[in-house]
Order: sequence, then structure tokens, then C-alpha cells
Amino acid sequence: MRMFDIIAKKRDGGVLERAELEFAITGFVNGSVPDYQMSALLMAIYLNGMTAEETAQLTDIMAHSGDMVDLSSISGIKADKHSTGGVGDKTTLVIAPIVAACGVKIAKMSGRGLGHTGGTVDKMESVPGTQTAVDRERFFEQVNEIGISVIGQSGNLAPADKKMYALRDVTATIDCVPLIASSIMSKKLAAGSDCILLDVKTGNGAFMKTLEDSIKLAKAMVSIGWHNGRKVAALITDMDTPLGYNIGNSLEVMESVQVLKGEGPADLTEVCYQLATNMLYLAGKGTMQECRAMAEQAVSSGAAFEKLKQMFAAQGGNIAVLDDFDQFQKAKFSQQIIADQAGYLVRMNTEMVGNASVLLGAGRATKEDSIDFAAGIVLHKKTGDKVEVGDCLATLYADHEEKFAAAKELFCKALTFADAPAEQPPLIMARVTKDGVEIL
Amino acid sequence: MRMFDIIAKKRDGGVLERAELEFAITGFVNGSVPDYQMSALLMAIYLNGMTAEETAQLTDIMAHSGDMVDLSSISGIKADKHSTGGVGDKTTLVIAPIVAACGVKIAKMSGRGLGHTGGTVDKMESVPGTQTAVDRERFFEQVNEIGISVIGQSGNLAPADKKMYALRDVTATIDCVPLIASSIMSKKLAAGSDCILLDVKTGNGAFMKTLEDSIKLAKAMVSIGWHNGRKVAALITDMDTPLGYNIGNSLEVMESVQVLKGEGPADLTEVCYQLATNMLYLAGKGTMQECRAMAEQAVSSGAAFEKLKQMFAAQGGNIAVLDDFDQFQKAKFSQQIIADQAGYLVRMNTEMVGNASVLLGAGRATKEDSIDFAAGIVLHKKTGDKVEVGDCLATLYADHEEKFAAAKELFCKALTFADAPAEQPPLIMARVTKDGVEIL
Repeated sequence: MRMFDIIAKKRDGGVLERAELEFAITGFVNGSVPDYQMSALLMAIYLNGMTAEETAQLTDIMAHSGDMVDLSSISGIKADKHSTGGVGDKTTLVIAPIVAACGVKIAKMSGRGLGHTGGTVDKMESVPGTQTAVDRERFFEQVNEIGISVIGQSGNLAPADKKMYALRDVTATIDCVPLIASSIMSKKLAAGSDCILLDVKTGNGAFMKTLEDSIKLAKAMVSIGWHNGRKVAALITDMDTPLGYNIGNSLEVMESVQVLKGEGPADLTEVCYQLATNMLYLAGKGTMQECRAMAEQAVSSGAAFEKLKQMFAAQGGNIAVLDDFDQFQKAKFSQQIIADQAGYLVRMNTEMVGNASVLLGAGRATKEDSIDFAAGIVLHKKTGDKVEVGDCLATLYADHEEKFAAAKELFCKALTFADAPAEQPPLIMARVTKDGVEIL
Repeated sequence: MRMFDIIAKKRDGGVLERAELEFAITGFVNGSVPDYQMSALLMAIYLNGMTAEETAQLTDIMAHSGDMVDLSSISGIKADKHSTGGVGDKTTLVIAPIVAACGVKIAKMSGRGLGHTGGTVDKMESVPGTQTAVDRERFFEQVNEIGISVIGQSGNLAPADKKMYALRDVTATIDCVPLIASSIMSKKLAAGSDCILLDVKTGNGAFMKTLEDSIKLAKAMVSIGWHNGRKVAALITDMDTPLGYNIGNSLEVMESVQVLKGEGPADLTEVCYQLATNMLYLAGKGTMQECRAMAEQAVSSGAAFEKLKQMFAAQGGNIAVLDDFDQFQKAKFSQQIIADQAGYLVRMNTEMVGNASVLLGAGRATKEDSIDFAAGIVLHKKTGDKVEVGDCLATLYADHEEKFAAAKELFCKALTFADAPAEQPPLIMARVTKDGVEIL
């Protein structure tokens, strides 16, 4: 077999066999297939596409390029969730404890934030003492004991994806549905859960900007999962505005706790219930209505909040902060952004809002940057709100006063006001299952 | 400017600006653009194409990546000719002296043979003593003195093409008209002639297998030339059968001399007249009819043969061999191939015939191989001929007897016999000028 022929076949619109995909991916990882041949193949895939079967095979091969986490020592159904990334997206901290409280195991690896989007692991570490680097044995033990653990990615998961992504990033081959889907799903397959619920964020703060593109991606990922023996569904949710009101690490933990106490903002609460309901449904806990009721009961009974505390405690976190937010380390400085015009806030450039939060210290512009857990933004007005002159639009938090100017400028640039309210997209736009697409 | 954006633009079907092409090509040559980005761009070009303007710009940039030969010290019109390569294609040795005898200057760089196709420089070196590595000053001097010099490629002509070709060769991006056309024409532009006549070989012994593909390539090359201030036309000629009867280096020199003496085979003679006529026409020597008459007169008067001898003499060759073929070094061994079946020879796989000649020692399988100038094949029957049992089909020549078995096997495999004659393609299929395509 020759890489040349594999490239030529895809260039001519052919469908690659598993053996051909294996030759290309394995060779690329071990170095026998050079970068320049892989980038030619990736461009041919970008322009000529891949069938669902091909994409599923590719993903399985990418997953098997490294460790396949074996969760069989954990009894019962294991559920995972993945978000394509957004601003203010703290849903994992809400739904993982809800689902675990309902008896479905959560043995989850999460990522760190990069660019305008945050990451669950960073948020967890804002609870003092919390360990997210946990060895595999202790990880399994914790899930068997309390039903839940969320840790940082460990081991050598899908190294093929890492190497392919780095190449795609410099050869303009990122933005291609089969390649995005296989990138995400290779890591999810390797992480070992039976059920995977995908949250495909859509809008100006998300990787996918349109509902159409998001549905395509969701369909590709759902198909990959079922082809490879996993139960997978996806919700397409709005990211035209930040989710909830808090952006930043400890700020988002606090807001998650509010939702678990039944006191969270309506948008975040509803998205969390829908995600949790779908995870429970995938795990076979009942009908959609039954699963929704179960999720709501887990919150109203306090069981889900208790589960969150158990998880943090098991990972060394000081859970006193969860009951008393004043015990969180505070930002040294804050600054309010006051409206100097009246009108309707009709649009927030959510990516810009996320980047304003990065400027305050809440995120990383590059992988090497450190994070200020207390930094961030609390929104007081969101898209759709009516604003009067003098209203507080947001409060910014940082550890150095000089960070405010640039962050404020970017935040204000992100806002569009108008004389009349504009129609806003629904919170949950669509649901994609193996049976098809349901527009909501 | 970023290579990423250039790749993305072509990926999305955009038309690259000159500055973008310059950034990509110059960066690739100096190493600031890595192979893996160039191969992604090449695949995007392969799949999305290039406009005529883009292709012309690309070619000019590739030409300017190295030396641009300045022929201004040679007075008068300078004409060049390029063949896309075939088997038995010795036309340069015939038409260069014809055209020079008619007063158009030939300051031509030629290539060596590789694979199943031969090269003019190798053929010339079969005339003992002939120098083809000639410094630029002496090259110009010879052309000014006698109107003709054909030498090996010297200097650093179009290094961008060399580097791009090597990458295309391993990334399945060879077979793409704008890239083939720019590869050929970049070297022709750099070589400096005012008029360039292209001989696009077509058929089973040629790079382009169909008339349609050949016309596309010819149109692209003619367009590149005129965009860049050169007078260019192309003939599409048949390579479904070897040209003439002799294949091999000294064998082809002898057949060229026969044509120049008016004693050559009809097919080779006609192709040479048509090529010479078109070169003279491009050089402004008259109407097509006048140019044809001029070419025939150069042969019948002996002026063209005299010009060939002048050229070889000026380059150190022993021209006695041209008047007396017996003085050529002879192959130690020969073997006849005798027909064991009767019928019509309806097809010759010309590439196989070329490769049989390589097996005998007449060509190179790799660049490092040496050549046996006396080795080769003399055909006695060609496509279209009627064959009786016992007829001699060909004579093979080699310096070792053990070379015959494999060469004979391949040669015989190349032949297809049938009970009835099959229609053969015309010798000259089409003519492509800046005004359009004329099917002949």
C-alpha cells in the first residue's frame, strides 16, 4: 500500500477502505507518512468529503492510536457529555452531579480553557485544593464510591488527533465536518463511556456559527458514535449570547451552585435540565418526560448539589466555598460598566465578550498562560434586555486595575443597541438522535 | 500575508493575486513556507483549478525563481521548441537545423532521457566528442556565429519548478493542467527565446493519453506564453506509435540525418516539416505556405543537413559519423524479432516499446543510470502494417546478450494483432494558437 495511492483515491472522490485509513493515520502518527502527504490528503478530504462509514472508521482508528480507557471496572452505565465550547458554559458542573444523583455514572475527563472559551478543569480548580490530575485507579475508585469524578485529560488519548489537528491548524483544513467530528469523537470514544451527549453550541460565540452547520456536525458525530457502538445524541444550543450571567472560573462555579440550589438564571437552568434529561434518556432511565422529572427532582431534593460537594470533597476541594461564596478568593479590583445610551441590547458578540474575560485574566490566550480564578465578568444585562442610561451593564473583576481599559473597550464593542427589540434565537434549537433531526 | 490565508482562499475557489502567488512560491523556495503548506495549496489548486491569468502569473514567478537567460546578445529572432516527450521523438535534431538554416536563431537547452522517453542531449552525445555542457558565453558565441546551438540545461533554471515537482510527485498532484503547464513553461520562459513551439504528444506512449487532455494542456501553455510576452503555438501530434522507426540514441541521430537528406520515413518527415513550418511562422518568416516551402527548400538544398554538421562540429563532435553511419560505435549484439503469427499490427503500447529500449541500455530507469549510445530498437513493422508469419518485426541492439530476453518479452507484449486493420489516429491531430484550436 502507498500513501500516494490513498491521496489519489480521495482526490478523485473515492471512498477510502478501513485498511487505507489505517495505513495513512498509523503511518502519520509513527512518522512513516510525512506531513506533506498528510496535508494533501486532508485537503482532498476537505474538498471531497467522507461518507458516514468512512468518518466512523477514521474516528475509530484515531481513537485506537492511543490509550482506550477501559471503564469496565466501574459498574453500571457510564455517561459522558461534550460541549463544542462557548462563553459562560458551566453546564458540566451542573449536569454531571444531576445525572450522577440519578444513578448514572460519570467518569469524565474534561479540558482546560483556550481562547475565548473556558474549560471545566480550570473552573473546578477555582475551588481551593481541588485535584484534577488523578491517577486512573483512584479515578475509577471514586466513581465506584460516589458515582462521579471529573478530572483533567490524562494518558495518551487519541494522539493521532493531536498531530492531525496541529497540521490542520496550519493548512486551512480545520473547518471540515468529517474532520471536526472525528477529532471530537476520537477522544470521546477513547474516554470509554457508553452514552455520550453532545452540546453543539451555535452562534457568534461558538465554533459553528449557523444552525445548518451545527446540525451537520451533530449528525456526523451522532453517526460516528452509533457506528462504533456508543449511544449518542446531540442538542444544538444557542451561543449568540453567553450562557448564564457569570463568565470566569470561580464566578461560574458559584452560578452552577445557584442552579443546583434551584436559584440559577432561567437560560442556564433550562439548558442544564435539557442536557441532563437527554443524558438520562440515553442511559435508559425512562421516557424523556420521566428523565426530565428525575433531573428536576435531583435538584429540588438537594441530591444533585450534595453530589457536587461529594465530588469536590473526594478530589480534595474545600467545599465550604460552595456553601459560602464569600470564602472564595476575591478579585482585588472590580469595575462597573455603565450604559451611556438607552435602548435594547439586540446583539452581543459573544466571542468578544469571552475575549474580554481573557483580558481580565480569566482565560488563556496561549496554552502557557496562567489563570486568575477570581477574574471575569458578571453580566447585568443580556441580549434582549432593555437598557436605560446609567444602568449597570456588567461588572468586571481582575487582579490589576490596568487590565480594565482594554477589557472594557472590547466588551463595549461587543454590544449592539437598537431602538426596538430584535428577535432572539431559541435557547435549544434542535435535537439530533440516531433517528434524525428534531427542530425545537 | 499568511500562507494559511492563501491556502484557504484557493480551497474556497478563490483566484490568487500575483502577490499571494509570489509569497507562496518564493517562501516555498527559500524554506519559509513548509512542504506541508505547499502540498495543501497544490491539492487545492488540483481540485479547484486556476484561471489563465493566475496560471500565467504562477509560471512567471516560477521562471523568475532562478536565472532568466538573457539572449539579447544574440541578434535576430530566437526560437525554441518543446516536446512533452515520446518514444523515437528525434524531431529537435531535424527541425533545429532546418529553422536555423532559414535564418531563425536556435539557442536551445534540452534535457536528458528519463523513463520510457529519450532526450536530445543524450542523442547528441552519441556523436563522439560532442559537448553539451557549454558555458553561457561560448553558447551565445556559437549561436551568433552559426545560428544554432543545442546544449544541456545549465544554470539554475526555475528552481521553484524543481522543488514543486518533487513535492507534486509524492502528493498525487502531478496530473493537473495548470500545474503541468506552469512547470513546462516556467523553464521555457527562463530559457529566453522569443518564439516557442510546443509539441504535445498524445496517445499511449505520451504523458497525455487523449486529444481532449492534450488540447487543454496546449491551450494553457499557449496562454501562459502570450500572457508573458512570448509567441507560442502548439501542435498535438500522435504518440500512439513510436515516431519513425529508430529508438535509441545513435539510431535516432541516423534517422534524423536521413530526414535531413530527404530520405527519412514519411511519418517523421511530415511531423518535422509541420513543426519547422510552425516555428518559422511564429518567427514571422511568412505565411504558413511560405514557411513550409522554406523548410522543404532547406532540406532539398542540403542547407539544413549542413547546419546540423556545423552545430556538431562547433560542439566538438566527430561529424564524419553523420556522413558514414558505419563509423558510429556499433552494438556488440543484435537480435531480430520474428513474427510467429500473421495479421494486422493494430496497436503498439508505445510506452512498453520505450521501456523495452531502456532495458536494452538505450535509456535510464533512474537518473543515475548510464546510457549505451548504440543500444535500441529498429522497428520493421509499425502500427497499421500487415504482418506475415516469419516477417521481421524489429531488430534489437545491446552490448550484452542477456539483455535481449526481458526486452523481447516486453516488446512482444506491447504488440496487438488482429485479422483486420484498425483505424489509426492522424499524425498531427490539432494546432493550438492564441486564436484558438484547429482540429486537423
